[in-house]
Amino acid sequence: MADVHTTRRARLRDRCAATGVTAALVTGPANVRYLTGCAPQGAALLVGPGPEDTLVHLRPPPEDPDRDEPPDDLRSIVLPTPDGDAAVAAAELAGEQRAGSLAVEEHHLTVTRHRALRSVTAGLPLSDLGGAVEQLRLVKDEHEIAALRIAAEIADQALGELLESILVGRTERHLALELERRLVDHGAEGPAFPTSVGTGPNSGTARHLPSDRRVEEGDFLTVRLGARYRGYRCEVGRTFVIGTAPASWQIELYELVFEAQRAGREALAPGVACRDVDRATRQPLIAAGHGEGLAPWSGHGVGLEIDEDPRLSPAAMGKLDACVPVTVEPGVHLPGRGGVRIDDTLVVRPLADGGPELLTITTKELLAL
Amino acid sequence: MADVHTTRRARLRDRCAATGVTAALVTGPANVRYLTGCAPQGAALLVGPGPEDTLVHLRPPPEDPDRDEPPDDLRSIVLPTPDGDAAVAAAELAGEQRAGSLAVEEHHLTVTRHRALRSVTAGLPLSDLGGAVEQLRLVKDEHEIAALRIAAEIADQALGELLESILVGRTERHLALELERRLVDHGAEGPAFPTSVGTGPNSGTARHLPSDRRVEEGDFLTVRLGARYRGYRCEVGRTFVIGTAPASWQIELYELVFEAQRAGREALAPGVACRDVDRATRQPLIAAGHGEGLAPWSGHGVGLEIDEDPRLSPAAMGKLDACVPVTVEPGVHLPGRGGVRIDDTLVVRPLADGGPELLTITTKELLAL
Repeated sequence: MADVHTTRRARLRDRCAATGVTAALVTGPANVRYLTGCAPQGAALLVGPGPEDTLVHLRPPPEDPDRDEPPDDLRSIVLPTPDGDAAVAAAELAGEQRAGSLAVEEHHLTVTRHRALRSVTAGLPLSDLGGAVEQLRLVKDEHEIAALRIAAEIADQALGELLESILVGRTERHLALELERRLVDHGAEGPAFPTSVGTGPNSGTARHLPSDRRVEEGDFLTVRLGARYRGYRCEVGRTFVIGTAPASWQIELYELVFEAQRAGREALAPGVACRDVDRATRQPLIAAGHGEGLAPWSGHGVGLEIDEDPRLSPAAMGKLDACVPVTVEPGVHLPGRGGVRIDDTLVVRPLADGGPELLTITTKELLAL
Repeated sequence: MADVHTTRRARLRDRCAATGVTAALVTGPANVRYLTGCAPQGAALLVGPGPEDTLVHLRPPPEDPDRDEPPDDLRSIVLPTPDGDAAVAAAELAGEQRAGSLAVEEHHLTVTRHRALRSVTAGLPLSDLGGAVEQLRLVKDEHEIAALRIAAEIADQALGELLESILVGRTERHLALELERRLVDHGAEGPAFPTSVGTGPNSGTARHLPSDRRVEEGDFLTVRLGARYRGYRCEVGRTFVIGTAPASWQIELYELVFEAQRAGREALAPGVACRDVDRATRQPLIAAGHGEGLAPWSGHGVGLEIDEDPRLSPAAMGKLDACVPVTVEPGVHLPGRGGVRIDDTLVVRPLADGGPELLTITTKELLAL
């Protein structure tokens, strides 16, 4: 059986061939990793023009965790100059190999690097590979989903332990750091993204950066964290209330966001338009008069990156496929008072397979801590 | 007295005027922050063409720590579409304001975004602003140096506390996380970069990512950390030996790297070529037969980014100025055995002012822990 990365590169070759591209230069780190199984610093992957693919990279640091050996059928070139640009070297190689043209990732290369490529590929026309590799990454295989499942378990464990500890009086920064330590305790390579902890007026926001504010009685507490496992990143977000009795506005707001998030989860199915999932999630919040200040998305794909295709937003194109992992993460923030966010990672599955698979299983009841 | 950011933008205008540029679009986050005092997510700064500068950004998340109010003389536009591209909107504005041309940061913009800019600036010629703002950032004022001094104090404190704790048996990951917690305890906004802890065979490398390896008797232990304070980032790196008595090879290697690092520190002075500082640092290591596998740089500037100009490397152009903070960080790694790195942040000062100012004052004796 062919190495999974070899198969992925073969699929990229087919896509390229279909559009007349004879050689592709992949420079997005997650894309390189997806196609080779490793992503040494500054690596660039040349697919084609010949039957052989070439990974150009800098001298790897010892014990680099991303340094799993590339598959045997992948030629590996280490740059002589450790501060060189692997993409430029790979483009030069494409020129020497008389590629008719070279497709590059224009959404990843800066104008300056693109110019450097052109200067070494004398006359070799450069085209745009666009999001071809990102498109391949959309639908995950069972190995990828298994890694996401473990990442989600780790995040649930870290979150569960936090809930058993004393929270009042501790700062957002410390809670965030403790969560990240617990992620590592439970086997994560690290956090999937900077852990967000928001208390009181900071609760309920999408990307709050932990501050020195301390947890107080009566606060909403919003936590958003994720684990990275074998390179795959998941996300879970919950909102709790601190103290014995939630205020009625807190209960109402929580129930509203919970309903919106459930509607989004239930909308997930193969063939459903991404924007329809967004609408299902957004509509209840708009109907309740919270349309102002909603995040521009209600969810997004996850995988080797925490924020990848598909986007679940009003302007999103395309439909969901089976085996696409996405987040559903509506939130409402009331300036000065705080708010609620509820965030799950799920895998789109056909109804016949039981419908969407919930990876992050921490309870979504409103807990008073 | 004019706001410091206003003065900085005036200096950028002077530079642009000198090269016939009537309007500049700044998109590098650290560059935007340097020129405005804030860096809301996805912000773009339009300097000129008129007397007024314009900051275009997305709706800021509540309590965004970077969200200090922009100076009054700076016009601030919040994008209606929260998932829009502020750079594109700013470029459109430049077109409406009949800028003769627009200089953009080609080393920061991707080819795709650059094309989007072109599509909205109908006919407005785009040129390259290059590293103009990075050049302005090279020499720090006393407020910036004060922030770096505090960042260095914080890193020294965190490191000092670690040395008083039991190390044997703990993993690199846990030591790194504990250091980051202590940075925050002492008032850092966060780590300046991912903390590196390398034990045994992982010691002495430039960018080792903490693994699950545990500290053992007889190990070298290399730690590299930094604090972020008011956006400014410093760096300190030390190597220790675990256990009572260092082996003779460890003592020899340590003394060698110590000598190299001292030579580099002593070479720092206004008017000295960057490559000469690199040579002074590198030469003792090469002379001792460790030329192979040395890092491509012996140090670099620090500030709003942890790795900024100037580079201290064999190919570096330019000379040092007074009030430029740099690291001096030679290291030798012996594959399979480990090695030594010593890393300080210093500010270049004339001899008349006492020579280079050492910000990171943790001892550089070889401590046996």
